Amino acid sequence: MSQQPADLLPAAALPLSDLYAPVAADVEASAAIFRDELISDQGFISDLCAHVARFHGKRLRPALLLLAARACGDVRPEHHVLAAVVEMVHIATLVHDDVLDEADIRRRSATVNRLWGNERAVLLGDYLISHAFHLCSSLPTPQAARMIAHMANTVCEGELMQVFHRENLALREEEYLDIISRKTASLIGVCGALGAIYAGAPREQVDALRQFGLAVGVAFQITDDLLDLTGDEAEVGKSLGRDVAKGKLTLPLIHFLRSQEDEPRARLTAALRSADDQRYREVARLIAASNSIEYAQSAAERHVASAVQALEALPPSAARSALEAMAAFVLARRL
Amino acid sequence: MSQQPADLLPAAALPLSDLYAPVAADVEASAAIFRDELISDQGFISDLCAHVARFHGKRLRPALLLLAARACGDVRPEHHVLAAVVEMVHIATLVHDDVLDEADIRRRSATVNRLWGNERAVLLGDYLISHAFHLCSSLPTPQAARMIAHMANTVCEGELMQVFHRENLALREEEYLDIISRKTASLIGVCGALGAIYAGAPREQVDALRQFGLAVGVAFQITDDLLDLTGDEAEVGKSLGRDVAKGKLTLPLIHFLRSQEDEPRARLTAALRSADDQRYREVARLIAASNSIEYAQSAAERHVASAVQALEALPPSAARSALEAMAAFVLARRL
Repeated sequence: MSQQPADLLPAAALPLSDLYAPVAADVEASAAIFRDELISDQGFISDLCAHVARFHGKRLRPALLLLAARACGDVRPEHHVLAAVVEMVHIATLVHDDVLDEADIRRRSATVNRLWGNERAVLLGDYLISHAFHLCSSLPTPQAARMIAHMANTVCEGELMQVFHRENLALREEEYLDIISRKTASLIGVCGALGAIYAGAPREQVDALRQFGLAVGVAFQITDDLLDLTGDEAEVGKSLGRDVAKGKLTLPLIHFLRSQEDEPRARLTAALRSADDQRYREVARLIAASNSIEYAQSAAERHVASAVQALEALPPSAARSALEAMAAFVLARRL
Repeated sequence: MSQQPADLLPAAALPLSDLYAPVAADVEASAAIFRDELISDQGFISDLCAHVARFHGKRLRPALLLLAARACGDVRPEHHVLAAVVEMVHIATLVHDDVLDEADIRRRSATVNRLWGNERAVLLGDYLISHAFHLCSSLPTPQAARMIAHMANTVCEGELMQVFHRENLALREEEYLDIISRKTASLIGVCGALGAIYAGAPREQVDALRQFGLAVGVAFQITDDLLDLTGDEAEVGKSLGRDVAKGKLTLPLIHFLRSQEDEPRARLTAALRSADDQRYREVARLIAASNSIEYAQSAAERHVASAVQALEALPPSAARSALEAMAAFVLARRL
């Protein structure tokens, strides 16, 4: 992925720990709240929760919420709680996604469904989402809970739309963007907005940070979908080819089917409909010989550029710079 | 089921519509809120939600919440919202339960997993639970949301404990009661407490109605488990024998394994461990020849008696009488 605009490259080359420096202690504080919320009197439930702690990864969402707060003003105790909440919603969706995708590997660890079966994975996802709402409702006013619950409704809609459009080879780009806006970007948009609102930011900055999060989220998902098709399983650390296996049309495929002649289109359609469980390799080979990867990368870049532009509503600060770098990181990521 | 105390019989013989008479308009108002909350811009999501509307059945939980409110004071608009919330949490758990139980029939209709597969059923359950929290967070203060989320945590714990103890033939009665208290009774207990709290009831009445709901919930689940073993599928209107098929030990089995001699115990154990997918019929036959059904019925009756006793903290009223009758109805139910 060598397509990101040159002005974003230096920041993207920074390690994430540098990006998070302005809120490092706050990320830690929210991680402690996350852990405390999941303490259970049932040892085996604690074991399940300890396992999903491996899925935290980059903690992109809590860091974004906390950096948004810092970019607008002070980080407050409510931000620590909310950062734990958004991470918990995120982990809950991963656990259920892995059930739906029949995925075996997540962040180089076995998925919950792989280790303990679908039933525990479904219930553990329910447990995490319920605890996220519980944590959220511990705040003195219901505003954040309303926003979180509304976002969770939207995420579920996006997931349902994705399943509904499975095997739909006529899916249009705007429908794809609607689905990923709901299932992925809505959560990251709420991170930006909540960070700003609880820092007492004016409406204009709240809107800017919501737009920032939404655009980063769309870029993130386009890149994630590209990795699923073209990534290296050992490097990415999770099951790949799941989108093809599950009949999910993603941006390079949509572009290919729209822009190619009949004959290559027929070959891709045949590969997508093949019963071979490694058919995504043939799909990847066909796509690699086209300009559809570049098309999807450019779309991700445009969303990152629009995210960075939204930040102009904020005064310059170390936190704002970190958010800019985070947006660029989304393009550069390999896992 | 001819074991209920004689003084409860006349009330149990009343049709439910008579029981709900003191809150009939309020049950309707909450049903309208339930429907409105699930309106979606995606037609197929509305279709899924229209299907699960068939699972409402007796609307026991909203009716209990509303009768609790009326028994303590006035029914307020918050009660209508909360009655819709508890029903939505309940329906969400049914949808996920049917996935876990691989059930085909629910209230004489096909289950969501049967009709549209596990993926849509998992996501629809997520969608319903998220909307329940969304509706809850529309209230001006977060108290109800805290109670609902805490209860949902407890329900998930109970469900996880149940899966964890699958095939555990050494499950003790107190462990079974702990599981059903969490997975079933906690929701009904919250119905009683929320009805009282939002009617401005004193602490003593709130506690009494919570105790009432908890005891009714335990009796309800013991009876439900009895029906799963001894009921008639056509009459009950859902898949039976699921507990045996899924390795869930319920009260008559726990009592049988604890009280019988080695030889009948060995026969029951062999039946439980058989690979025959109709093995619950043999289990039911063995249990029917013992006093273990009566033992479980007596346990349910004791919980109903304690529920009715808890109501003595309330002044006499038509609503209180309806709650007493509702408790008795739990014993008499055949579906």
